[in-house]
Amino acid sequence: MNYNNFFEIKDGWNLQIKELKEDQLVHYGSNLLCGNGYLGYRGTLEEWGKEQYQACVITDTYDMADGKWRELSNSPNALTTKVTVNGKDFGDYPKEDRITTELDFNYKYGIFKRISQSKLESDFEIVSERFASYDNLHLIANKYQINNLDKKEMKLKIGINGDIWDLNGCHLENFTGEYDSNKNIVYLKANTVESKITLVTALSFEFKKGKIKNLKVENEEKSIYLLIKAEAESEKIEMERNMIVYSSNDLNGPLKAALNDAESALKIGYDELKEKHQAVWDKKWELMDIQIKGNLLDQLAVRFNLYHNIIATPAHSERLPIGARGLSCQAYQGSAFWDQEIFNLPMFLFTETETAKNILKYRYHTLDGARQKAEDLGYAGAFYAWISGKSGKELCPSFFFKDVISGRKIRNHFNDWQIHVSPDISYAIWKYYLATEDIDFIVNYGSEILFEVARFLNSRVHYNQFKDQYEIIRLLGPDEYHENVDNNAFTNYQTQFALKKALYFYFKMENEYPEKLEEIKDKINLNESEITAWQEISEKIYLPQPDQSNLIEQFDGYFELEDTTAKVLNDRLIDKAEYWGWPNGVAVFTQVIKQADVIQLFTLHDIFSEEVLTANYDYYEPRTQHGSSLSPSQYAVVAARLGRAEEAYDYFKKSAFIDLMSTNKAVSGGTFIGGIHTAAAGGIWQLIINGFAGMKIDKAGLSFKPVLCQEWEEIQFKLNYQNKKFEIRLNQNEFQLKTAADNSEALKFSVFEKEYFLDAAAEVKIKL
Amino acid sequence: MNYNNFFEIKDGWNLQIKELKEDQLVHYGSNLLCGNGYLGYRGTLEEWGKEQYQACVITDTYDMADGKWRELSNSPNALTTKVTVNGKDFGDYPKEDRITTELDFNYKYGIFKRISQSKLESDFEIVSERFASYDNLHLIANKYQINNLDKKEMKLKIGINGDIWDLNGCHLENFTGEYDSNKNIVYLKANTVESKITLVTALSFEFKKGKIKNLKVENEEKSIYLLIKAEAESEKIEMERNMIVYSSNDLNGPLKAALNDAESALKIGYDELKEKHQAVWDKKWELMDIQIKGNLLDQLAVRFNLYHNIIATPAHSERLPIGARGLSCQAYQGSAFWDQEIFNLPMFLFTETETAKNILKYRYHTLDGARQKAEDLGYAGAFYAWISGKSGKELCPSFFFKDVISGRKIRNHFNDWQIHVSPDISYAIWKYYLATEDIDFIVNYGSEILFEVARFLNSRVHYNQFKDQYEIIRLLGPDEYHENVDNNAFTNYQTQFALKKALYFYFKMENEYPEKLEEIKDKINLNESEITAWQEISEKIYLPQPDQSNLIEQFDGYFELEDTTAKVLNDRLIDKAEYWGWPNGVAVFTQVIKQADVIQLFTLHDIFSEEVLTANYDYYEPRTQHGSSLSPSQYAVVAARLGRAEEAYDYFKKSAFIDLMSTNKAVSGGTFIGGIHTAAAGGIWQLIINGFAGMKIDKAGLSFKPVLCQEWEEIQFKLNYQNKKFEIRLNQNEFQLKTAADNSEALKFSVFEKEYFLDAAAEVKIKL
Repeated sequence: MNYNNFFEIKDGWNLQIKELKEDQLVHYGSNLLCGNGYLGYRGTLEEWGKEQYQACVITDTYDMADGKWRELSNSPNALTTKVTVNGKDFGDYPKEDRITTELDFNYKYGIFKRISQSKLESDFEIVSERFASYDNLHLIANKYQINNLDKKEMKLKIGINGDIWDLNGCHLENFTGEYDSNKNIVYLKANTVESKITLVTALSFEFKKGKIKNLKVENEEKSIYLLIKAEAESEKIEMERNMIVYSSNDLNGPLKAALNDAESALKIGYDELKEKHQAVWDKKWELMDIQIKGNLLDQLAVRFNLYHNIIATPAHSERLPIGARGLSCQAYQGSAFWDQEIFNLPMFLFTETETAKNILKYRYHTLDGARQKAEDLGYAGAFYAWISGKSGKELCPSFFFKDVISGRKIRNHFNDWQIHVSPDISYAIWKYYLATEDIDFIVNYGSEILFEVARFLNSRVHYNQFKDQYEIIRLLGPDEYHENVDNNAFTNYQTQFALKKALYFYFKMENEYPEKLEEIKDKINLNESEITAWQEISEKIYLPQPDQSNLIEQFDGYFELEDTTAKVLNDRLIDKAEYWGWPNGVAVFTQVIKQADVIQLFTLHDIFSEEVLTANYDYYEPRTQHGSSLSPSQYAVVAARLGRAEEAYDYFKKSAFIDLMSTNKAVSGGTFIGGIHTAAAGGIWQLIINGFAGMKIDKAGLSFKPVLCQEWEEIQFKLNYQNKKFEIRLNQNEFQLKTAADNSEALKFSVFEKEYFLDAAAEVKIKL
Repeated sequence: MNYNNFFEIKDGWNLQIKELKEDQLVHYGSNLLCGNGYLGYRGTLEEWGKEQYQACVITDTYDMADGKWRELSNSPNALTTKVTVNGKDFGDYPKEDRITTELDFNYKYGIFKRISQSKLESDFEIVSERFASYDNLHLIANKYQINNLDKKEMKLKIGINGDIWDLNGCHLENFTGEYDSNKNIVYLKANTVESKITLVTALSFEFKKGKIKNLKVENEEKSIYLLIKAEAESEKIEMERNMIVYSSNDLNGPLKAALNDAESALKIGYDELKEKHQAVWDKKWELMDIQIKGNLLDQLAVRFNLYHNIIATPAHSERLPIGARGLSCQAYQGSAFWDQEIFNLPMFLFTETETAKNILKYRYHTLDGARQKAEDLGYAGAFYAWISGKSGKELCPSFFFKDVISGRKIRNHFNDWQIHVSPDISYAIWKYYLATEDIDFIVNYGSEILFEVARFLNSRVHYNQFKDQYEIIRLLGPDEYHENVDNNAFTNYQTQFALKKALYFYFKMENEYPEKLEEIKDKINLNESEITAWQEISEKIYLPQPDQSNLIEQFDGYFELEDTTAKVLNDRLIDKAEYWGWPNGVAVFTQVIKQADVIQLFTLHDIFSEEVLTANYDYYEPRTQHGSSLSPSQYAVVAARLGRAEEAYDYFKKSAFIDLMSTNKAVSGGTFIGGIHTAAAGGIWQLIINGFAGMKIDKAGLSFKPVLCQEWEEIQFKLNYQNKKFEIRLNQNEFQLKTAADNSEALKFSVFEKEYFLDAAAEVKIKL
């Protein structure tokens, strides 16, 4: 795979796409996304519409249309533009062949720029730049220029287009709009069909260059347009415009807010808006950037992934999830999976800890949804949704994929058998506590989650009186190709861990925060016999142990399945679009797994010997298809832990370029799954920090086992651990740790099991 | 459905098929089967071969060819015949259109007769009669005549044809054969490819009429033929011949035995062989016949079913199973299912109790196979095979059906999740004990089965500590369309019953047969803690109770499935040959069930109120497809118990004519499932005795709740209960019970809950 087929590198922050390829439209839209955790505006040309996957996804707008899947809504497009010169449209539409377009994207500030040049008689050119503001999350600012008009007749159509791309039915209805010709502000108001959220999209614009005549308003059912003619003498047109989106879930009176913002943005002007926006990013990168020396492509790819993990995350809210595809499109329903805690969160946990807290608080606010799900399925406590939106109610459809051969829907059991999401959340809370020592969070939020998860697990496990052990029956583990398995090692270990942490904080609170504990016990009606049960289960739960070959069986009977490879299975496909898993896909009766599973267990729990790690890595690696974007980063972390830096680097390439080189498929088993793989994005951070730097935290504290691949000269990044900041530099010969000047106490850590204490503004260099 | 499309009634024992229909060949072969529990010779013309589904299935010849399914072997055909007159073959081959054939079958003695008459120039005719002897189980005797030859030139080819029909690969190899011209005996010896059983097929023949010249021997790879010319002056040819089959599993030296039998049969002659054979049948019918007055078709149908249940049963052995298709073909691998105990056995239990004992002893002799299966799947005790051959090892293929749309095999879980067969066997042992008081059997055989089944159940159930109950997870109940269900009511109740009976006999033996108990405990290493566990499970096992509508849920969550009908589902089929069940068939996510399930529970356990029976019958009836031949008879029993005699009669028709009117399909989901439905045959006995006569036995003793459908004037049958024989007559007005003259003690029973005691040779008449 050659990246040149997809883009060119300008520098460590910028890429360029010299010429558009039609088959890449869906990928450009996602990869070149402008976003800020509130909205995501896809990397499409202003002239494009739903056929080219134009969309602006808005958080907190869950809606179900036509009885299909509940998902986030897209906003009408206030950057919609039609340019007609001498009666011809210019928009670099597929097969149009009138202009060529170059795309530039800056991942430092999320700035999308396009330059389109006419292939026809003159030098006519469209140049446009935009960003989704981090200073005002409701704003997308755009500067749109048309150059070298050469006195041609030009018509321009701008406005707000409500006829938009949706994956599962149209979410907006009852469109009303207005144009205020005094202020040059247009708005379009609509409401979502099921959830009745009001969504307001406003546009304010000003022509900075070029003379405009004859402005006409055109209303369509779902759109409002302004038809404009440029004066014949205009050589150049430059328009600044602002797209503003508010919903009634953001505040009361979204229309007023949108009109206010539209007006003030116009007053501030594009350049100042951009400065304010960039200042926020500068602050973020101060802690979150990772510098790679020695490979510019890899440097760019790392920042691509960091950027996408950041903009996918609704850091401004403690009540919103991180979508599995962020806000890059509606795929996966704009909702959180276990990815949120295990893949997206770690980066924030050691940098922007407030954001990490918000991510976990989201799980607190969705406890009722999780309780409802547990109750609906006959369990107690909190069984978190597999696909979790705002309320935490289960959004995962029972019939997720389709049998592409028969056309019949497949009853996948992601929503009722894939239980590990609940203990995964407990795990993340524990890690948050270790990294921040934020006992207030635990006492006020985390403990209730931990207790309710433990309660759920108690109701979910079964005691095998014959073997005197607790078992978990009928599961999906991380490897989703094997549904309906028993005692998935990953899930069983996570279950024990979640129970033990619930017990730990129960007894800690009993001694240190007894009133708080009583309050929670009263609130959730928790009684002592439940604590006894958690203790008994955590004592007697079956934890698959390494066998005489040091192998841990992924689930009961896994080793008896047909032993083959993904390559062989690929040849067995009847239709290349077939789903490989449940109930009758090619992988189901084989040892071929979709993604890291036992290996995933290793990345979360460093409790096995190197022999065990080696044996399992070597066994599972050739049997893993990496059909999930979550997989390569986890293999990389274990590879690095084993000192196999070059293998870790191979996985880096697999993981970092999933979106950047568009290796993923946008449709599987009849379901659109395109968009940015935010878990892979978050996984890149883990791969470097937990993998190459070998960083981990546990009860023993912070530690490092660094190893660096030959391809890179040096990596450099900052971390924030228990409110102590420090910088790491790692090259082939040396591991360097430098503490921040304003640290209020000494940092304790170990490198290769040797302990260090470092005061503020100190550094240590360790030869490797 | 009109039976005339299939056959004509001659009298209550005999049917006639006036003209052959090509699309019925597979059904004639099964319906007109000559059999005796050792072999089954299909109702095909002597001129036919494998294309017309000719086969002679031999018990105890399990073999696996080409890695396919293990099944019984077919014997080479020693009745093979080719008749050539004036250069033309006559055999009523499909589309040949030279002769027409009439078939007659006598169900009293299992005598197949065919008369074929030339459509061509003369009255040339073939008449042949045969039976599978009950006097010598290895013998099929045949009288073959060719009439009105009218001095034509005729060639005859007889011998033994080893090129035979097999469902799953050729089972025989290494053919050797010889013709002894002094004795007119031919034999063919071969061995099975996997199990290396020697199979000897012998033929002895004698021409009683007609002159024979020029006999030539022709050997083919798998066959040995005699080519014969009739003298020109022969007007008529009459040949008596005997087909003898022995295998090395029957005795050492099967060849010698076959040659001896062939020779002696020739000496005895056809007519005397027939007399001896008929004498055995006369004795059987003395106890087993059921007379129906008022409907000759129904009378014939009842005897058809009784006949087939008898000849399917290897009464001569205590080590052989009853095949789900008897010996009518190789379908279902010539092996036992739960049908054996629940459907085939009851008729013998109240008539030929030695046979009933043999059927149960078969389960004793296959305990090791059941233990092996349990161990292989991680359980203890005896998990009986879903498809059980001689050894009791699991013969059920993991991939049973095929997805006819994709062509991919389906992993049906009949072999690992359909556990009820084990407690079903315990149930049958209990009923045997009640009906016979044969405590010797319990002490020497039954108790070990009961203990090992209980032990298996202990290892199979899970304790739900959260609900303080034992549960059974991941099951198939009798309704096979719903795999992977929890707490199937039928299975859970059967499990409790099996545990309670194991406990009952454990304590009975502890007090009454302590040495025997110690012997078994030593043998199977049974300890007291297991007894405690059985007791605890039987106390705390979850037994779904009638809800406020009196309904018992078939399994957890059944009532939440889509509520629709089989008719609606039929329209959803993409391919009519599709399997309806697991994992993605049309019935899986609906309440449409294949067969009686909660209703099956009611036929085995009379512990629910009439309100509960009514509610469930009315609920489940319209949701039952009766896709299994096991289903209608069970609905009929419950209908009769509710006094709904006409509905019971409707089910009688559904059940009795499944084979007789060929309403079943021979292939489903790509698998050949043709042949005689022996469970439906046994079910007819239950339908009349347990249904119309309302007979049941439990700890309270023998009782009747008679009700008769309007269509019948009277039914009459005999029973043997605790070694006391009696005859029942039931008509619309009266229930009459007459005890046998040689009963040694009084018969105690109740009719409509009123108790009676009847000495030998006494009778009681009860007005209805």
